[in-house]
Parts: sequence; C-alpha cells; structure tokens
Amino acid sequence: MNIKIITKLTDLNEQNYKYLSQDFVIVVIDVLRATSTIVTALYSKALSVVPVTTVEEAENVKEKLHLENSLLCGEENSEKIPGFDLGNSPLLYSRETVEDKIIILKTTNGTQALRKCYKIFPDKQILIASLLNVIFVAQKLKNINKDILIICSGENGEYSLEDFACAGLILDLIDEYDADDLTKTAAYVVNYFNKDYLHLLTESAHGKELIEKGFHEDLKFCSEIGIYNIAPEYKEGAIYKY
Amino acid sequence: MNIKIITKLTDLNEQNYKYLSQDFVIVVIDVLRATSTIVTALYSKALSVVPVTTVEEAENVKEKLHLENSLLCGEENSEKIPGFDLGNSPLLYSRETVEDKIIILKTTNGTQALRKCYKIFPDKQILIASLLNVIFVAQKLKNINKDILIICSGENGEYSLEDFACAGLILDLIDEYDADDLTKTAAYVVNYFNKDYLHLLTESAHGKELIEKGFHEDLKFCSEIGIYNIAPEYKEGAIYKY
Repeated sequence: MNIKIITKLTDLNEQNYKYLSQDFVIVVIDVLRATSTIVTALYSKALSVVPVTTVEEAENVKEKLHLENSLLCGEENSEKIPGFDLGNSPLLYSRETVEDKIIILKTTNGTQALRKCYKIFPDKQILIASLLNVIFVAQKLKNINKDILIICSGENGEYSLEDFACAGLILDLIDEYDADDLTKTAAYVVNYFNKDYLHLLTESAHGKELIEKGFHEDLKFCSEIGIYNIAPEYKEGAIYKY
Repeated sequence: MNIKIITKLTDLNEQNYKYLSQDFVIVVIDVLRATSTIVTALYSKALSVVPVTTVEEAENVKEKLHLENSLLCGEENSEKIPGFDLGNSPLLYSRETVEDKIIILKTTNGTQALRKCYKIFPDKQILIASLLNVIFVAQKLKNINKDILIICSGENGEYSLEDFACAGLILDLIDEYDADDLTKTAAYVVNYFNKDYLHLLTESAHGKELIEKGFHEDLKFCSEIGIYNIAPEYKEGAIYKY
C-alpha cells in the first residue's frame, strides 16, 4: 500500500500521484475545524453536509433546491457568517440542532479542499477524516486496501501542523505502508507530541488564532481521538455518513 | 527573528517571504551530498567552489576561464561524471587533492538550488550549511541576527527528509525565533530522531538510494555534526570560506 500526503492545496493537481496506482482512495482532513464539524454533524444524525466555497453559493444552494430542512452554516475569518444558522464550531452540531437536517457548509479551507478534490477526482472514493474519527477511518482504509492520497486542507493555501499530524496518525494506525520522505515525516511529527493532541493543536498557528478568538473549547473538542465510529464519504455533491 | 523554510525548489520564488523583513539572510542545504561536499572542499583549503547546473556548463567554465588550477567535479544519478576529476562524495575532497584548487561542481539538486537562489536573490547573503558545519552556521546566524530563509534543496523538486532535518537542527540551535507551522515542524522532526543522525540519513529516500549505490560511507560521514567551524558564502558566482 502506497500513501502520499498533499500538505497544501496549491500542491493538489492531476499530475503528481506518480507513486500511487490508478485506483487510489482519497482522505480529506481539516482538523480545525471543517472536517471535525462535518463528522460531528453526521454523527448527530444530520442527513448530509453540502460543502460550498462562498456565502453566495451557500444561499443559492438553499434557495434553488428549496431545501426547507436545511441549515446555512459556516464561517468567515473563523466567525459565524451574519444571517447563517450556525458557525463552524463542532460543539454547535448537537443532535437536537441538526438531526434530519441538510447542512450547507461554507468554510475557509476544508470545504475549498473538498470541492477542489472532487473537481479533480470526481470518480474517486473521498473519505472525511478528523482526529474525532481517525481510528475508524484508518481501519476502513486498511480494509479497503488500496493506495491512499491524503489531502491536508491547510490554512490559506499553506501547510498546517494539525492536518499534517492527523495524516501522520492515520499512517501510524495503518502501520504498514510505503511512502515518500514527506509522508513519513507526518508520522514522525505525531510521535513528537507523544499523544498530547491538545498540546499539538495549541502549538499550531491556526489553533493559536482560534484561541485568541475565544474558541479554546473547540480545540479541546477537536483533539479527542477516535470518539466517532464513522467514515463519511463525499459523493455526488454531498457528504453522507454511510 | 523570523525564520522560514522552503522545503522544495518549486516553492522558491520572489513572492512568498511575507513573514520576513526585507533584509534577510539565506541558508542553502543539501546534506546528501552537495553542501557536505562544498564545506568539506573549502575546509580542505580549496580556493573556491563554482556551482554549475550542467556538465556542459562545467566544461565551459573550465575552458573559458582558463582555470588551470581547477577540478571538474560532480555527479549524475549519484555517480561520478565520465571524464571529471572527482565525484560528489565528500570523502574525496582531502587537502592533498583540493588544496589551492578551484572546484567546479555540478550536482543534481544542491547546485541547482544555489543557482536558482542566487538568480532570485542576487543581493542577499547566502550561507552554505550541512550537518558537518551546522553548529557554526547556527552561531553565525545568531550573531547576524536577521530574519532567515532556509532553502532545502530536496530531491528532484521534492521534499527530502535530511535537508528538512538539518534546517530543524539550525532552528534547535538558534532556539529563540518566530516561525510558521511548517518551519516549526522541522524542529519536531529532528527531535524525533533523538540525535541519531545516521539513522535519519538511512531513513531518507535519497539515503537509501545512495546506500544501494555503494555510498554508505558517505552517509556516515555526512551525519557528523558540527565538525567544521566554517560558514561558507556564495557570492559573485562562487563559494568561499571567508
């Protein structure tokens, strides 16, 4: 099994998967906070999550599809978007709030990564990972037993520590694989933090920014390992629990 | 002091130094083996090292400049170039071989990085670092006390573990600095290997390749930390010890 990590969105393109066989599976990660929010919403029995890239697109999706059971969700500059139902904090996505709802989600990094990934690889299986469901995702990847492309959403086009570390944790859990230097480095990084994932999140640039904006509880929550036994998939425009 | 690491040559351009002040110093690293060879040659009293990008350019430099005291050196696919005086193994650059000589050096990654860097930043101070002189370089950078751009040569345009780790060791030795997530990650990686630098080199893809080609002794030598108290500079087309 070959694994390759893309650490920033600008590195994601059709060409650079020379180490992978044609038939690989994709994992998208945005620990702070899009994929943590997505898996929480689906665990809380939301029907689906529709990732969008702009506020306008979110509103259009809601209007055009007459989605009466939908919620407009997401952030700009980490804050809830004016007029939207929910921000991007996973703590908001309780069962009483989201059960049987369609979540239309706009974020700065994670939903952009998902959309770009879907555009480039429309026929691939795309799994959603965060620390919250990392154990189940890793187990599923072992069962699927194909090559893997892990896409770290990163932060505004740049590398982010927390996504790379989550990728490294997947590698650690898969245990046996072939990889290039960069991919193996993710596993070294996770080991450095010796399972103190909250410490890891507070060391990251985006983690520090979220703490400054009052989202420290989000970091605590997003640092929980493997509390959800789900591996959502992004297919035909929306993410489902399966 | 702000520090930024470039992990692969394709990421090196005029634009992406927004975290650095205008007046920064550059460090170029290619542990396996170009910068290890360069610092060894200069420590062994070579007059200078002229980095070139092709075999043809190396021969032109020798002919056009009538450099009678020069040696044609370097590699293609890690092997000595036919007709050249020396390959790219630092072990070859003893004082009796290179004293008072000008070394015209062609390599696959390191000399390409140096030339690209010089082309983009002709007015910056460019220091040459490897594990062999890393302690002295770090001390010099502390004394200079400017922002730092560390350029990892990498391997055929991709990230390489050994260059990133050498950058991380520089960070460790400087100790107090500001950096983005990627740059801080280099310091985590070095810590993972707990000072076993030979192990680190043997884990890298390029290290494995060199071992296969019979260059295990080169890895051993290149893993020695801080044995040279020099910080060579690349200026006006050539590298000097200063």
